[in-house]
Amino acid sequence: MNRSVITYVLGTVLKIEGALLLLPCLVAAFYREKEGIAFFLVGAAAMFLGFLAANKRPENSVFYLKEGCITTALSWIFLSIIGCIPFILTSEIPSFTDALFETVSGFTTTGASILSDVEVLSHASLFWRSFTHWIGGMGVLVFLLAVIPMSGGSNINLMRAESPGPSVGKLVPKIRYTARILYQIYIALTVSQIILLLIGRMPLFDAICTAFGTAGTGGFGIKNTSLGGYSTYIQWITTIFMILFGVNFNAYYFLLMREFKKAGIMEEVRTYFGIILFAVVVIFLDTIHLAPSPGHALTDAAFQVGSIITTTGFSTVDFDMWPMLSKAILVALMFIGACAGSTGGGLKVSRILIAFKTMLKEFGSYIHPKSVKIIKMDDKPIDHDVLRSVNVYFITYVMIFTCSTLLVAIENVDFTTCFTAVAAAFNNIGPGLSLVGPACNFGFFHPFTKWVLMFDMLAGRLELFPLLILFSPTLWKESALKRFAKKDGF
Amino acid sequence: MNRSVITYVLGTVLKIEGALLLLPCLVAAFYREKEGIAFFLVGAAAMFLGFLAANKRPENSVFYLKEGCITTALSWIFLSIIGCIPFILTSEIPSFTDALFETVSGFTTTGASILSDVEVLSHASLFWRSFTHWIGGMGVLVFLLAVIPMSGGSNINLMRAESPGPSVGKLVPKIRYTARILYQIYIALTVSQIILLLIGRMPLFDAICTAFGTAGTGGFGIKNTSLGGYSTYIQWITTIFMILFGVNFNAYYFLLMREFKKAGIMEEVRTYFGIILFAVVVIFLDTIHLAPSPGHALTDAAFQVGSIITTTGFSTVDFDMWPMLSKAILVALMFIGACAGSTGGGLKVSRILIAFKTMLKEFGSYIHPKSVKIIKMDDKPIDHDVLRSVNVYFITYVMIFTCSTLLVAIENVDFTTCFTAVAAAFNNIGPGLSLVGPACNFGFFHPFTKWVLMFDMLAGRLELFPLLILFSPTLWKESALKRFAKKDGF
Repeated sequence: MNRSVITYVLGTVLKIEGALLLLPCLVAAFYREKEGIAFFLVGAAAMFLGFLAANKRPENSVFYLKEGCITTALSWIFLSIIGCIPFILTSEIPSFTDALFETVSGFTTTGASILSDVEVLSHASLFWRSFTHWIGGMGVLVFLLAVIPMSGGSNINLMRAESPGPSVGKLVPKIRYTARILYQIYIALTVSQIILLLIGRMPLFDAICTAFGTAGTGGFGIKNTSLGGYSTYIQWITTIFMILFGVNFNAYYFLLMREFKKAGIMEEVRTYFGIILFAVVVIFLDTIHLAPSPGHALTDAAFQVGSIITTTGFSTVDFDMWPMLSKAILVALMFIGACAGSTGGGLKVSRILIAFKTMLKEFGSYIHPKSVKIIKMDDKPIDHDVLRSVNVYFITYVMIFTCSTLLVAIENVDFTTCFTAVAAAFNNIGPGLSLVGPACNFGFFHPFTKWVLMFDMLAGRLELFPLLILFSPTLWKESALKRFAKKDGF
Repeated sequence: MNRSVITYVLGTVLKIEGALLLLPCLVAAFYREKEGIAFFLVGAAAMFLGFLAANKRPENSVFYLKEGCITTALSWIFLSIIGCIPFILTSEIPSFTDALFETVSGFTTTGASILSDVEVLSHASLFWRSFTHWIGGMGVLVFLLAVIPMSGGSNINLMRAESPGPSVGKLVPKIRYTARILYQIYIALTVSQIILLLIGRMPLFDAICTAFGTAGTGGFGIKNTSLGGYSTYIQWITTIFMILFGVNFNAYYFLLMREFKKAGIMEEVRTYFGIILFAVVVIFLDTIHLAPSPGHALTDAAFQVGSIITTTGFSTVDFDMWPMLSKAILVALMFIGACAGSTGGGLKVSRILIAFKTMLKEFGSYIHPKSVKIIKMDDKPIDHDVLRSVNVYFITYVMIFTCSTLLVAIENVDFTTCFTAVAAAFNNIGPGLSLVGPACNFGFFHPFTKWVLMFDMLAGRLELFPLLILFSPTLWKESALKRFAKKDGF
């Protein structure tokens, strides 16, 4: 294992986090809040640690998939641990477990909160919470790849470990430019949303935080009613942008390159919009009798569908009070999730599509046993390795889900709470149903459950294997053996 | 498509069912119940229809997988439709949907009932309900293969479509003898259980019905309290036999052949017992404070674990009142199910094992990308086709499960009821949690929901594809075209 390159990247990540922590300081300065000091101290400490770890470039910067996974998993863990300290120092979230839960929930763009009253937080803390969504949405390692020149083509393994979806497509031959293009689209969309929210007379601070939560498909609200208190215009703008951030970013790249045909044939994006349309129509019809007007019902249905399928988790109504059909559709959307290559979580529409096509192929082989059928996506055959990895992903996903639900069941809460708490954490959504519904929070859980859910949030965001690999005994045994061998001069 | 052979087999199945319907007539004669007439009339009608359909042997008796699937699916549907008529004629279950639900639930060895009071039924009807479990457990086509000589080796496709598990093993080269051995083991175990129950002073009628329900892993009780009212001895005998009927029957064959080593290395069976042990211990510890004594707690824990993992569904306590951890474990066991090649349902332990090994292999490939690892079971490498079919099975299973849950959600019952009703039907268990818990029944559901659940029961028992294939438009279009072509002399 190439330890020096791992240390170097981790150090760089800390330096970046240190720099990013200065933004909430500025917010604190603007609002004259003393909480800014905590963010400044932690930022400075992170920078210092970062410089210590990354003081010299490693001689050998080759990255294999193993190193990519380990670096990614450790980066996210370090980011979260450092990122939660300000909450503890300001005494706004005094417990370490709670503060870490909130920060992991932020970076993984889950948006599940342990706070029952977010409105008492300082502006600096509210800003940091929402900002972690924005950082985590596109990924800090993608950012790192965009700004820091890394030698060798093997750093695709870093991007592969952090980017969501069954296969990572390079938009342009160089990873660095791919990462830059992604961040440019990300920033452009975020700024557009802020401007459109400001036009709807949303206060600047609210607009920035809401845009951060939308862009990262995070879902931390800065009000106790999430987005329920804002105007219909603001709710619709947020709905549209949530859905836009759930689209595979490759589609935007194709649009920018004026390759409209390529963008048009993207099956995943078309399926994604199809599912949204279907869900909105059914929920609208199912809830129309509960809303003051059909317009209200449509606004709420569209908002909730957009919020859940993109795994954002904002809410405008307490959908736990909706009829069971609407709730069941939302739960199904939780698992489907957004497109691969977007900032959303869940299984991803492309995996569902591939799974569906695999099923149809098997079906065909029963009827015509001798025919050889190839599974295609966007008119191109899908690589056998991708098919296999999708299958394994499903299996691993179900196993982790089951184990987590059993562990959460130790709490002795009802089945719906157990099931949807894990679904909401693992798919990076935020609210579930019953005791973790949109009108509730995760604060009442035992610390043990909170640790299980933190694991789920990280496993969901990093798409299972990069996090799981940290728990492999072989990995640590081997590298310990090698160190031992080195010491003894073998 | 070879229509004549399909018609021939269906006719034979009807003849067999006609003969089997005479047994409840005998029971009725013994108890002097007038309900016997209904069973006699339906039995005679089934025989008549059977002779009409199977009056001449087909010239070409070649069976492909497609024909095997269609025949199996249609057999089970015809069996259920004919089998439900006595309940309607005797007015014990006057509604067609309800009577069919009860019969499908019987043949598929589910054991979910729409009756709130089973004790008012006649002995003949109680016997028939339990007897459908026994017929469905090993499968009527396996029976047919055992008694009727079918030419050609292609009738493995019939057995493949009806037998549970990822791959069908022929115990001996001839399918006919394999089927006979399976039935001999099945009968021997059933008779042993009846004798042991009689020793525990269970009335003969109760002992026979309970053994039928146990052998088929069905779960229809003949008392409103299921097995709650019987002695601890009877409960333990039932526990042991439920677990025995969940074992892969190949293990018994090996034991009979004195190939103890072969039986000993069966990983599936060892894992099955491991899971049972683990579940019993955890549930025992979790419920010990609720029971009058530790002995009671152990009896109930072992009974419920045996009942659920084998997908039998008998109950001695209302486990819906247990703590969440115990309930969550039971829900997990519902999905795991029994061994392949047993009479139990669910995903089957072997599929879970293969899935787990697939996951570990992927895991290894992250750490040692160049190593080639082969997935083995019982020290033999698993065929690539089996691996693929297990993956596809998982995916198809999840898709059907999700769609069913959404359809059941139209009922507007709580999430736990929706989820566990589908889980209980699809895995052929019987009771679920909440409104379909062991103290409740499925009678309150809307007919639409009952039809959805009937589909799930059949899909679960026939392991998805044989039933799904009936819904393939290609299949019917093609055969309609061919008939059309034949008529016009093409």
